[in-house]
Parts: sequence; C-alpha cells; structure tokens
Amino acid sequence: MARGFRQKIQQKNTENSGFGDNASGRFINKDGLPNVNRKGVNIFNRFSWYHTMLDLSTFQFLSYLVIAYILVNLFFAFIYYVIGVEHLTGIDKSDPINEFIDVFFFSSQTFTTVGYGRIAPVGFMASLVATFEAFLGLLTFAIATGLFYGRFSRPRAYLQFSDIAVIAPFKESSALMFRLAPYKNNALTDAEIVVSTAIEVIDESVPKTNFYQLKTQLSKINTLALNWTVVHKIDEESPFYGFSDDDFKNTNIEIIVHVRAFDEVFSNTVVQRSSYISKEIIYGAKFTPMYYPDKENLSTILDLDKINDYQKAEIPVLAEQ
Amino acid sequence: MARGFRQKIQQKNTENSGFGDNASGRFINKDGLPNVNRKGVNIFNRFSWYHTMLDLSTFQFLSYLVIAYILVNLFFAFIYYVIGVEHLTGIDKSDPINEFIDVFFFSSQTFTTVGYGRIAPVGFMASLVATFEAFLGLLTFAIATGLFYGRFSRPRAYLQFSDIAVIAPFKESSALMFRLAPYKNNALTDAEIVVSTAIEVIDESVPKTNFYQLKTQLSKINTLALNWTVVHKIDEESPFYGFSDDDFKNTNIEIIVHVRAFDEVFSNTVVQRSSYISKEIIYGAKFTPMYYPDKENLSTILDLDKINDYQKAEIPVLAEQ
Amino acid sequence: MARGFRQKIQQKNTENSGFGDNASGRFINKDGLPNVNRKGVNIFNRFSWYHTMLDLSTFQFLSYLVIAYILVNLFFAFIYYVIGVEHLTGIDKSDPINEFIDVFFFSSQTFTTVGYGRIAPVGFMASLVATFEAFLGLLTFAIATGLFYGRFSRPRAYLQFSDIAVIAPFKESSALMFRLAPYKNNALTDAEIVVSTAIEVIDESVPKTNFYQLKTQLSKINTLALNWTVVHKIDEESPFYGFSDDDFKNTNIEIIVHVRAFDEVFSNTVVQRSSYISKEIIYGAKFTPMYYPDKENLSTILDLDKINDYQKAEIPVLAEQ
Amino acid sequence: MARGFRQKIQQKNTENSGFGDNASGRFINKDGLPNVNRKGVNIFNRFSWYHTMLDLSTFQFLSYLVIAYILVNLFFAFIYYVIGVEHLTGIDKSDPINEFIDVFFFSSQTFTTVGYGRIAPVGFMASLVATFEAFLGLLTFAIATGLFYGRFSRPRAYLQFSDIAVIAPFKESSALMFRLAPYKNNALTDAEIVVSTAIEVIDESVPKTNFYQLKTQLSKINTLALNWTVVHKIDEESPFYGFSDDDFKNTNIEIIVHVRAFDEVFSNTVVQRSSYISKEIIYGAKFTPMYYPDKENLSTILDLDKINDYQKAEIPVLAEQ
Repeated sequence: MARGFRQKIQQKNTENSGFGDNASGRFINKDGLPNVNRKGVNIFNRFSWYHTMLDLSTFQFLSYLVIAYILVNLFFAFIYYVIGVEHLTGIDKSDPINEFIDVFFFSSQTFTTVGYGRIAPVGFMASLVATFEAFLGLLTFAIATGLFYGRFSRPRAYLQFSDIAVIAPFKESSALMFRLAPYKNNALTDAEIVVSTAIEVIDESVPKTNFYQLKTQLSKINTLALNWTVVHKIDEESPFYGFSDDDFKNTNIEIIVHVRAFDEVFSNTVVQRSSYISKEIIYGAKFTPMYYPDKENLSTILDLDKINDYQKAEIPVLAEQ
Repeated sequence: MARGFRQKIQQKNTENSGFGDNASGRFINKDGLPNVNRKGVNIFNRFSWYHTMLDLSTFQFLSYLVIAYILVNLFFAFIYYVIGVEHLTGIDKSDPINEFIDVFFFSSQTFTTVGYGRIAPVGFMASLVATFEAFLGLLTFAIATGLFYGRFSRPRAYLQFSDIAVIAPFKESSALMFRLAPYKNNALTDAEIVVSTAIEVIDESVPKTNFYQLKTQLSKINTLALNWTVVHKIDEESPFYGFSDDDFKNTNIEIIVHVRAFDEVFSNTVVQRSSYISKEIIYGAKFTPMYYPDKENLSTILDLDKINDYQKAEIPVLAEQ
Repeated sequence: MARGFRQKIQQKNTENSGFGDNASGRFINKDGLPNVNRKGVNIFNRFSWYHTMLDLSTFQFLSYLVIAYILVNLFFAFIYYVIGVEHLTGIDKSDPINEFIDVFFFSSQTFTTVGYGRIAPVGFMASLVATFEAFLGLLTFAIATGLFYGRFSRPRAYLQFSDIAVIAPFKESSALMFRLAPYKNNALTDAEIVVSTAIEVIDESVPKTNFYQLKTQLSKINTLALNWTVVHKIDEESPFYGFSDDDFKNTNIEIIVHVRAFDEVFSNTVVQRSSYISKEIIYGAKFTPMYYPDKENLSTILDLDKINDYQKAEIPVLAEQ
Repeated sequence: MARGFRQKIQQKNTENSGFGDNASGRFINKDGLPNVNRKGVNIFNRFSWYHTMLDLSTFQFLSYLVIAYILVNLFFAFIYYVIGVEHLTGIDKSDPINEFIDVFFFSSQTFTTVGYGRIAPVGFMASLVATFEAFLGLLTFAIATGLFYGRFSRPRAYLQFSDIAVIAPFKESSALMFRLAPYKNNALTDAEIVVSTAIEVIDESVPKTNFYQLKTQLSKINTLALNWTVVHKIDEESPFYGFSDDDFKNTNIEIIVHVRAFDEVFSNTVVQRSSYISKEIIYGAKFTPMYYPDKENLSTILDLDKINDYQKAEIPVLAEQ
C-alpha cells in the first residue's frame, strides 16, 4: 500500500456495491461470479440443482446422464433378478451372469420404451415393476428434454474481455482502458456498461475497502458488433487521480465491470461481468486496433486474436497542483 | 391502538398500494402472497391450472403424476376388458382377475409406448382403443415435459429474509432494519427494494388503514452476493417518527417488502415479497454481522444461520419538540 | 354527433396512438385485439402459425391434433397398402378391408413408436417407410411438446374488466371510471395503466378522429390483488370537460385501455387491453364495492360477480364559465 | 462525394453507434445484421450452434435432421454388422446386402424406440450397443424438441419495411420518410424507433464516417396495428440540412433503423433493424396511403402490397441563409 496515498482520494465512495468493507479477497472472480462462499443452510437448500445443471460443461452433463442411465438400469435389473427370471420370457438361463445380463438389457429396453418384446414380463410383479420403469423412463426423458433446452437456450452474452486493462494517454491526460468484443454469431444491441472499483485504503491504520463508480466516456452503445474500448478518463473526479505506476502496483485495486445488452436471437437481456485486479493493469500502454476493412472494402473484419495487443505509450506527467 | 398516536403521523399516505382501506387481516402473507380470497367466478375460470401445477411441491407434483398414470391405466384396462380379452393376444385367461391384470399391463405398455408385443391387440375395437391410448400417452408426456420444464425453469429469487425486523440505533436517531440474503447458487444483480407500510389509524373512531412508502438508505445494489441490511431511518419524514416501543406493540403495523433483481442464470427479472407485522418487530436491537473473511483471507463466507442474530441496543430518546 | 361539441375540446390531441384518422370502426375490439384486417401479402406470410396455434381454444387445438393424427395414419396406411400387405407380418388377409384396417393400425403403432411387433415390416420398402414414419412421429411429438408448452406457459394477465364504464360524481366534479380485477390465482405486481380515447369530431364538416391521453388518478399500483377502479377526473384538462349525457351518447367515443403488469409466476411482463365505446358508458352511476372482509376479519374476499354492479348517482352540474 | 458538402454538417456526431470510423462497407445489411466478419477465434468458439440452428430456414433445418438420422443409422448398422448378424434375431441372411439392410432397419427401430421386436438383439455386444442407441435416440429427440421449440417460440417482430426511403415535402420544409408495417397476426404495442445515420465526410482529404442520431416526429406509438410512417424533419438540427438531390446521390449515406416493440403473444420485447443506403433514398417523393376503411366502414384494411407506393412531390427550395 503506497503511503501518502490515502489523501489522494477525495471522491465520495459509493455504498451500493453489495460488498461490505469486511469482505475479503477478490470480489468478482475472472469468470464474473462473486467470490463468496455460503454456509449454514442445509446443502439441499443451498443449491439450485437446475442452476447447477446449467453450469455444468457439456461433457460433464452428458457423462452424468450416461452414468445415471447405467445406475438406473443396474437398480432395476437387480429388482427383476430378485423377483425371478422365470417371470420374464426369452431369458438366457444358461448361467446366473447371463441371466443378469438379460434382465439388465430388459430393463434398458423398458426404460427407453424400445420394448422389442424378445424379453417380456409375464408375472404380476415383473409387469408391475416394468410398468413403473417405463413411466419413470418417460419422465426422465421429459426432464432431460427440459434440461437440454434450458442449457442451450440460456441467454449468454458471449463477450470476450481483454485479459488486461491499460493506463493510456488520453486527451492531455490519461485514461484507464480495457476492451471487449462479441466472439459468437449473436447480435447484441443497446449495450450498457457499469464500471466500479474497489480500492483498499488505510484508515487510521485499519485496511478498509472503498467502492467508487467509474465514469466512462460512453456508457451505452447501439450495436455491439465490433470491439468496444471502454475509456475511463483519469481526471479530478476519478479515484485514480494522481496515481503513479507504483500506486497502481502497490494498492489493492479491483476494477469491476458489468455489461448488459439485448440479444436479438434470444430476444432477452444478457449480462456478463468481469474484473481486473492490480497486477492485470498495465501502466503506460495503449491498445492497437483489432478491426480493419476487408480487401474489397465491402465489410469489416474483427480479429479476436488481437484483443490483448497493446504497445508502450508515454503517460503525460501531471503538473503538481 | 395507542391513543394520541393519530396526530403523530403527518406524512401523506400513498394510495397506490393496491389494497383498499376496507381490506382486512394481514395484507401480504409471510410467503409473499396477498391475503385475498376470490369468489364468484366459476372455479375452472378462477384457477390457472398451470400456475397451480407450478406452485405444487415436488412431492405433490410427482404424486399427482403417478396417481393420474394409475387411473388412466385402470380406465383403459376397463375398456379393453369390456371389449373382450379375446381381442388381445397373450392374455393369461386362467381367471378374470388375471385377465384384468393382463389388460391393465397391456394398457400401461401402450400408454408408455413400450409395446413389448407379448400382449398385442388383434381386433378392430381393441386396436382402435390402443391407437388412441398410445396417442394420448405421447401427448400426456408432451404436457409433462412442459410442466417439468416450467417448474424448474421458473425464475425465483431464492432470497431468505430475516424472520424479524429491528428498531436499531442509527446516526443519533433510530432506524427500522431487516435483512435478506440469497441462499442458493444463483447470481443476482441490480437488486431493488421497495418498502411500504400499512398502519391502522383511528379516524373519528373508525379504524382505517393508511399506506406509506418507507424511504431506505439504499434502494438499489449492484451485486446481491452478501446479505443486504435494509435501513429505513426514522426521521421527521417517517410515519414511525416518535413511535415508542409501546406504539409499535399496540398499533396494527405491517411492513411490506418487495425485492426485484436480475438473475444471471435465468437472464430474467425475479421478484420476491415478504412482510413484517407488529409482533415481528423488535424494539431496541441491532443485527450482528453474518459474513466474515475465510481463514486464508481469500474469499468471504456468508453464514446464513446467523440471519436472525441480533443483540440488544439502546435507542436514543428523542427530545420533545 | 352533438353540434356545438367541437369547440369544447381544446386539449392537444396525441398522434402516437398508432391509428390514423382514416381508420374506421372500433379501433380495439372488446377482446383487446386491433380491429384491422391485413391484405396483400401471401397468406402463408401473413400468418404466424405459432401465434395461430397459441390463439386456438384448447378444444380446437386438441381436435386439430386428433384430426392430424388420423389423416397421417390414413396417408401412411395407404402407402403400406400400395407397397403390399405381403411385406408386413401378422396381417389379417381375410378381405381387403381387414387388410387396410391392419395396415392402418400398423401405421399408428409405428407413428407413436409403440411398435408391438405383432405386425412388423419385412421387405425393404415397407421397412423404409416405417423408418421414416417413426422418425416423423417423434418429430411431430417434439413439435406438439413445444406447442403445449408454448400454450400453457404463455404469459397472460387474466384480468377481468367491467363491461361498462361509468360517469360518476367525484370531488365536486365528475369522473370516468371503470374497474378491473385479476380473476385467477396469479400474482400481479407493478401494474400500470394507460388510458386513451378516440373521439370523432367534425372538422369543417369532415368527420375526423382525434386521440387524447386520459390522465388517471393512479397510473401505477404495487400489488394488483383486489380490484382496481381506474378514475379519470373530468376537469378542464379532460377532453370530456363539459360533456353532457347526450354528448356521451351522440359522439363516437372509444376509451382504449392498456394494462401492463409483472406476473410473479411467469416472472414476465403481461399485457391486456380492452376498450369501451359510447354505448358502454353509463352517465350518472357509481360502482358499488366488490370486496369485503371475511367473517373472522382475517382476510379479504374479492367477489368477482359484482364487477359490473353500480348504482345511480347524481352528477353535479358544472357552472358555466 | 459532393465537394463543399463538408461544411454543411455542423451537428455534433454521436460516438455511440458501436461502429468505428475505420469500419468499411455497409454497416447494417438489409436483413438487419451487422456487416462484420469475425476472425481469429477457433471456429467452434466463434459460432453458437444454437443461434445457427435458429437462423436456418425450415427447409434447411428439416434436411439436416433427416440427413443426421440417416447417418446415425448407417453408423450403427455398420457396428451391428461388425458385431455379427448372428447376434440379432429375424435377420434375412440370404445375402450380405439384405443383412445390411436388415441391421440398418433394426438400428432405426432402436433409435426411434419403435422396437417391433421382429429383429431383436440376443448377444451381449448387440444388446449393449442397442441399449446405448435407444438412449442416444431419446436424447436426440429431447434436443430436437428443444430446437423446434426454440425455433418457433423465438420472438420476432415480423415487420416489413418499405424498400425505399423518400425525401418528401413536410411543413414548408422537407422530411426523410420511410414506413414499416406488421405483416403477421402478431400484436405489437409500445413500439419505439431509433434512427441514426452514418455519413462519410472528407476530413482533410481522408474519408471518415460520422454518425448522427436523427430526430423523428414520433419516436413511440402505442399500438402498431397499421403502418407507421417514420418522419425525420430536415431542419437546422438535421445533418441533412441543405442537402440537394445530388448531395444525397453522391454522398455515402446509410440510414440505420432500429425498432423495438412488445409482442403480446410472446409477452416479450422484439427488435428489428433495417437500413437504407444512398441509392435507396428517393428525392422528391411522398408515400401514398396503404390503409383504408372496409366497405361497411366497420374495420380498417391494411394493404401490405402498397408499402412501396409513392408519387412524385416537389421539395420546397430552401432560401439561402
């Protein structure tokens, strides 16, 4: 923490961040989720299984489905086996393993409702269990249908943020800049950005976190088709006014970014957050362009690989006041 | 009702609560639903069966599905039995009960479309009924799919409110406070709160309910990740200005809370309401913190079991004016 | 059209109704849909079949499904019959009608994927057609699933409007009033109303329709649990200022009502419109209450059968100015 | 580019278009999508397959489904064939081609879960593969269900824009006008329009694109049931002030239109964009009406074929200032 730094911030800190000054560590993780753990409520109440299912990766989600399918069939195979293979037609009774294999496949043929009929129930108990297994199977696939739809229809912004923010020269002064770009074939309009910062200050030798809203040159753009370089000018109203390279390095700073836009395919508002901490802020640098006209000058090319490209740039020294 | 109390309220009451002064009992139940019964419209028109299905508990919902499944199969079994078991192949005709059991299972194998074929229709009537039962089965599971999806994709705020509100010391005066916290792994942003109160006053010896909007210190916070302690300062503009402990106890007061936030997983606005009545307001108390840094100071822990924890606190006596 | 009436309206008419002055007949039908017919575009482009499917009554929708099911099976039965019944096992070949009945049921067993197997395809052509029929069947039920969900998850306000509006005495003057109430177990909050009116005036002997926004005493209420009596005070700023009973009767007036609210179960904004024309406005009447406390004074009862109940009321005569 | 033109524009250009001055070609294509190509990200990350599936035409979408169905069955047929036809009952073993045909149909009967049972698996491997094929089949149809629903429930504005914009006489001056009309049986309310323009200017001999917001006479209408003629008056505040016919022809102009409305069936906000470039702007013309009362004067007819109908109209010459 840079000494003498405390006095520099005269702006009123905002109280509506939702984070108190007793919170600890990074506030927002790089993936946009708050860095908070919950405790004390029953674990079943603490998780929304639907939110959890939607947050799984595709691979995890499919794996869970396959594992569940195998376990359900083993369970029912066991029940049919206990009831007795003599209540099923077409079972290969050469040895117990073959019997179990056949009841396992009978179970899967029932659960999926494929029901070839080569193996079929004849007694009351086997028929009853099969009746409920087929019913359970259909309900399971009803739920799976909903989960698949919930997963892929979940509105997401698909924005890529630059990994770093820069302190760049800007209009005889300097500005904090970072950029973001849509990387998928979605169409975002009416994009709005809210940028705030958490700065740890030493107040009577006790570390305390203050929150400030950061003004940006533009806070709303109509069509988010190209990249958006967000510019926060460091002037007298900025909490970073007078910060040197060392101040940025030695202070616990977190820039919290919240983007909200309207996705025209989902016809829904989408939201994405990110954050930059001190070591992700580069002093004395500016971004290089990441879009250019195509060869025939008929459309514009956005090169997403260049989102982190920057070059050194001299920050004008602020005259002491 | 505290006498002499009437004169204390000079604030303009609001008329846009949606409740008239002839309404009776608690306005908003603790679960957030209005305490109103409807009458006079045909019962089928008075209920939205979809809203009803979504409000059932999971256990109730699944029970209804199972019961409906059994009833449908009994119904079709009865029809097949009337048509005659000779129109189905593979029926065990040893006695009427076995016959009925077999047509019941044939019905379930048709309804679920598992169709093993060990029992199969051969005559015109049995085939016709089976044709429609299979069709009905598929439509039923189509509806069930929609209901499952509707149930688990239904946006909900998953907020826990403190059971009690407190009158706590606040900036040389006092404030009404209650708190709320998200208890699931959902991510809420842009949370807004609207707090209003219904106070029963005696107007020329007729009890009458007035409604007032209550100003809060913060009415909007960016990220609802930790708990939010909502603070209504009791100053000259508050309808509770000058209320003593007895006034709170003896007056019919209801604090109505309405929270609106944006859930990032559902990408949808979610809403939750709650209310506090006189006996749920504790005079001279303040909440104790419910979040703290974790051991390594890397993240914050929110302990939901502490949401109702408070300690006694002296309310400064207001100098008479 | 009342003569001498033209001069009375001095308010600026609004142009943002969306209806031009060359439109004709009632603007908004009683069910809330605009009274406009489209022409000129290809009929397939003029209808959104999804909107059409959602607007059907439940009975119509189910009837269409059943009819489509029968037609599809007749179509495929015809194809299998042309291919030849010898390519299907288990067909009753006693006479052509029985053959057709059996291929019809084979088709339905394939389309629903019940597939008992008593009748099964053996040749290439029959197998191929069955392969595509089963595929088509599943896609059809996939679409039906979506339609069912679309139908019952469609957010609707479920508001009942009074059939009539009244001109009632109000604060030494008069007011136009009508009322509305939610009639289902949905929970509406943040209800907003916009009321406008279309008045036919004679401008240099050409009839012309002017549109005016009507101010209401309340335009927003927090919780729409009881009925809402919407009040437009007829003062100097009202286009109806100075209107007599005869003026209301003899002028082509249409009151257009647009309600927007947030449904907490759907977590969605819902909208409902209605309109009142001259003969649905009763001069000199006021509504009688439609809600009252229950017997134990513990909750409020809303009697929807009373929504149109009114009693005669004298309108104070306006002193000439 | 008209010389001497540069000086005419004195309005402040807006920076929030989202398009930079290094972008090239038309900004918004006629179908409303931005004219931007992305580069640099892995192709799988660059596309949202769900957005892609929703953007396919119905014919393409169904074709892909059918092709995928055939490919999957060929794949599984191959596996069953490799495992050996002796592990399936009921196979026609007269020659290898018939064997393959039968395993292909067995595969399709498994994938669709129709499962006649005439062909059924008996060995471990064939049963295992069939178990997973049936499972895969159900998941595939679960996904297809979601895609169908996603496709037809996707909120769309269904607005038709006039192909051309006109510069028409308007209140002693002139105005840029274009019009739009809903062409389907959807009900749009609270329609808002935002019109902006991109004009290429020569700034110190370097072409540069400036963006301007265009004020419209009405920017919001309540009910979008008839056509909406959008009017931008060309006065001192317009960037087109003083533009001659030649200026419009010789300058690279693009009018970007963004409409947002509320669809009452979807209960969702819908958005549609379009754009007009220089050669789509007709100088000295006005639109002719496209709606009229029906024969009985009971409703209004909107003739969508007339949306592009215009007639010549003299633009008043602007006195030099």
